[in-house]
Amino acid sequence: MNRVPDEALVLIPGGTLITATPEEGRALAITLARHMIHNIQPDLDVLKAGRPIYATNPDSLMKASQVVAIEFQTIAAANNYWRP
Amino acid sequence: MNRVPDEALVLIPGGTLITATPEEGRALAITLARHMIHNIQPDLDVLKAGRPIYATNPDSLMKASQVVAIEFQTIAAANNYWRP
Amino acid sequence: MNRVPDEALVLIPGGTLITATPEEGRALAITLARHMIHNIQPDLDVLKAGRPIYATNPDSLMKASQVVAIEFQTIAAANNYWRP
Amino acid sequence: MNRVPDEALVLIPGGTLITATPEEGRALAITLARHMIHNIQPDLDVLKAGRPIYATNPDSLMKASQVVAIEFQTIAAANNYWRP
Amino acid sequence: MNRVPDEALVLIPGGTLITATPEEGRALAITLARHMIHNIQPDLDVLKAGRPIYATNPDSLMKASQVVAIEFQTIAAANNYWRP
Amino acid sequence: MNRVPDEALVLIPGGTLITATPEEGRALAITLARHMIHNIQPDLDVLKAGRPIYATNPDSLMKASQVVAIEFQTIAAANNYWRP
Repeated sequence: MNRVPDEALVLIPGGTLITATPEEGRALAITLARHMIHNIQPDLDVLKAGRPIYATNPDSLMKASQVVAIEFQTIAAANNYWRP
Repeated sequence: MNRVPDEALVLIPGGTLITATPEEGRALAITLARHMIHNIQPDLDVLKAGRPIYATNPDSLMKASQVVAIEFQTIAAANNYWRP
Repeated sequence: MNRVPDEALVLIPGGTLITATPEEGRALAITLARHMIHNIQPDLDVLKAGRPIYATNPDSLMKASQVVAIEFQTIAAANNYWRP
Repeated sequence: MNRVPDEALVLIPGGTLITATPEEGRALAITLARHMIHNIQPDLDVLKAGRPIYATNPDSLMKASQVVAIEFQTIAAANNYWRP
Repeated sequence: MNRVPDEALVLIPGGTLITATPEEGRALAITLARHMIHNIQPDLDVLKAGRPIYATNPDSLMKASQVVAIEFQTIAAANNYWRP
Repeated sequence: MNRVPDEALVLIPGGTLITATPEEGRALAITLARHMIHNIQPDLDVLKAGRPIYATNPDSLMKASQVVAIEFQTIAAANNYWRP
């Protein structure tokens, strides 16, 4: 198996939900979603084979966006929405 | 590849979840959802090819609306719901 | 294109999430969901063509209801649940 | 058209999210979901035709349950979870 | 019709969202989801016929899990997350 | 039936939502989702038969990720987001 590297399996890279900016918080949401996928399916070849399927399918793109939106709710709350 | 412009890849345009009005907050929710899609699929030609598929399909339209509704929950909370 | 009228494209009609009653809040949730759809698909003919498809399909009816339920969560929180 | 009666179209029957007990709150969540469906599809014959389809399909039953679960989140929060 | 027993139709068994432990709270979330299904479809034979369909289908299992996860959010909040 | 071991059926292993770190909280979210599946379908052979289906399907992977994201919202809130 062509396994994803160990660092791509860390569930919460950096070990915290706190980020300096909303942009970084959003990037963390994407990473959380992506690493979760890696933990369920750690075979890079399978992941790569799936990409052309979901990345060209509008419904799949929206499903992926929804997962990120949910992760971002958690991270934004953790950061008190980066209120000034 | 006909890549989306760089500014369409910024995850949180403006770098804040705080907006002056609910209307602007809702517009930001749409932008967040749209830019997320761009980050997963940055090829404009693929995105344009998908549009007639999802924009004429009621279930897809509702999926897209749901993602915006979730993003808006976060933005509305960030703004204390723009309470007077 | 038979475009939806401009007022049907306003994202947050009235410009506020605050309503006098739960009934009005629920109606606003429906409007938010509907106007969101209009912004993605502003062609009335396409929208009308889709209606017989989703309005007779139980799964589609539930998808639409779910979007309204999510919008209503936001509006109800904004109004402190209209607690007496 | 065999239209649902007017009272089945009221969005928030009783005009409040506040209930005396969790049981009543849960019943209200079901009513909210059901009346929402009525507002999208007010033709009783269409609704009755759909029932054998979704009520015997596990995935549809779970979709309906999920909508109620989301409505119940709102109602439970409105009632401070009926904490003693 | 082989109807589910009356007690399986109670929406909130015990009449409260408050539980002594997270384990009991999770069990209550499952019961809420299950009894909701019973209320939509009270025919035991139909429910039993559906079981082999959804219980062997990964997507259906995840749909069921998601409903429980949403119910659990409500119950956990009600219990202030059983914080010590 | 090749039944999952008893400990894999505990709904909330450890009996608490409180964890020392976000990484442990995320791992708990995965466990909650997994044990929920076990409780609906405790036959290991069925679960193993399903794995190649969902673990190679992008939409199924996103469904699984979404369930974990929802469980994680609850756990993160329980831990006050592990704020320093």
